[in-house]
Amino acid sequence: MTKYLDFYFDFISPYSFLAFKKLNLLNRDNEININYKPILLGGLHNLGKITPPAFNERKLKNMKNDCELIASKNNIDFRWNAQFPLNSLYLMRGYLVVDDNLKKKFFEICFDAYWKNNEDISDEKNIDIIINKTGLDKKNFLDSIKKDSTKEMLKNLTSDAFEKDIFGAPTFVVNNKIFWGQDRLDYALDEYNF
Amino acid sequence: MTKYLDFYFDFISPYSFLAFKKLNLLNRDNEININYKPILLGGLHNLGKITPPAFNERKLKNMKNDCELIASKNNIDFRWNAQFPLNSLYLMRGYLVVDDNLKKKFFEICFDAYWKNNEDISDEKNIDIIINKTGLDKKNFLDSIKKDSTKEMLKNLTSDAFEKDIFGAPTFVVNNKIFWGQDRLDYALDEYNF
Repeated sequence: MTKYLDFYFDFISPYSFLAFKKLNLLNRDNEININYKPILLGGLHNLGKITPPAFNERKLKNMKNDCELIASKNNIDFRWNAQFPLNSLYLMRGYLVVDDNLKKKFFEICFDAYWKNNEDISDEKNIDIIINKTGLDKKNFLDSIKKDSTKEMLKNLTSDAFEKDIFGAPTFVVNNKIFWGQDRLDYALDEYNF
Repeated sequence: MTKYLDFYFDFISPYSFLAFKKLNLLNRDNEININYKPILLGGLHNLGKITPPAFNERKLKNMKNDCELIASKNNIDFRWNAQFPLNSLYLMRGYLVVDDNLKKKFFEICFDAYWKNNEDISDEKNIDIIINKTGLDKKNFLDSIKKDSTKEMLKNLTSDAFEKDIFGAPTFVVNNKIFWGQDRLDYALDEYNF
């Protein structure tokens, strides 16, 4: 049976970005089968009645320092987004409608825009740049992310995650075991026998 | 100048217990100067307007699994306290009134009672056992923890920590840099140059 590591993410989450970059470094030879699982972190927090750390002054301050420290210790090119928490809704919907063969490219471009290049990814101009960089058809992309079916799909993926007891991002699932937070990537990979 | 690692803790915090045990293993030769800093975690959360994970069903479930996993990966003898979150107020006050030469012993006995031996440390009978094991005078101990000055001291230590931007436990401070959570013990020790 093929093993999988499920990786629940939202572009809004700096810890998801850091985990993604760490995983990239470890998975250069594509030995790990990763299932990227898009969810809306805000929606998940609402379902779980969780106040996100970004809404607490002290936690937010710690989060910035902590992310910068993790990035520096792991040689990850990271820049705290000055406008955090920027809404990632359009790009998360975008991830669902992008063709499979472009998903990985789109994923990386979005994450880098948010957490490497300090871009305002809620601004239409920057979304245009992401569309162009990925090589997508603009009209088709914008139409698709506005469809009710796309909105529903993201909502459903989020509530599916909630039903599985997931409450934050990044979350890794291996052999039905849940590992929450970029700090638990190592344990998830142990469970995967990597 | 002597270096110090400040270690903010509350016996109620399983992650503080795990960090303490990890630190014990690393510090067998007493090379690290540790300042144990008692605070009341509930009070700190109130000051910081933070809902503790123990009060969220999913976070609590994750916390139990996570602590057990950390303990197992680090060969720490740990048992989730079935009655968590048990009030640690008397023992935290106790830490303040115990003579300096018995503080370390008392500290370890309290932590083990809560997180190794699954005891109800809010129960007077168990507090008696802790008093006896440490070799304390019972009457003196109980009188001392009821004093207004003791209550005030713990409150003040908690609000001092809050003023320093500390919002959880364990928190480590080295060179005025704050490291939150047992996951950051390594970074704190890096800062200490250990």
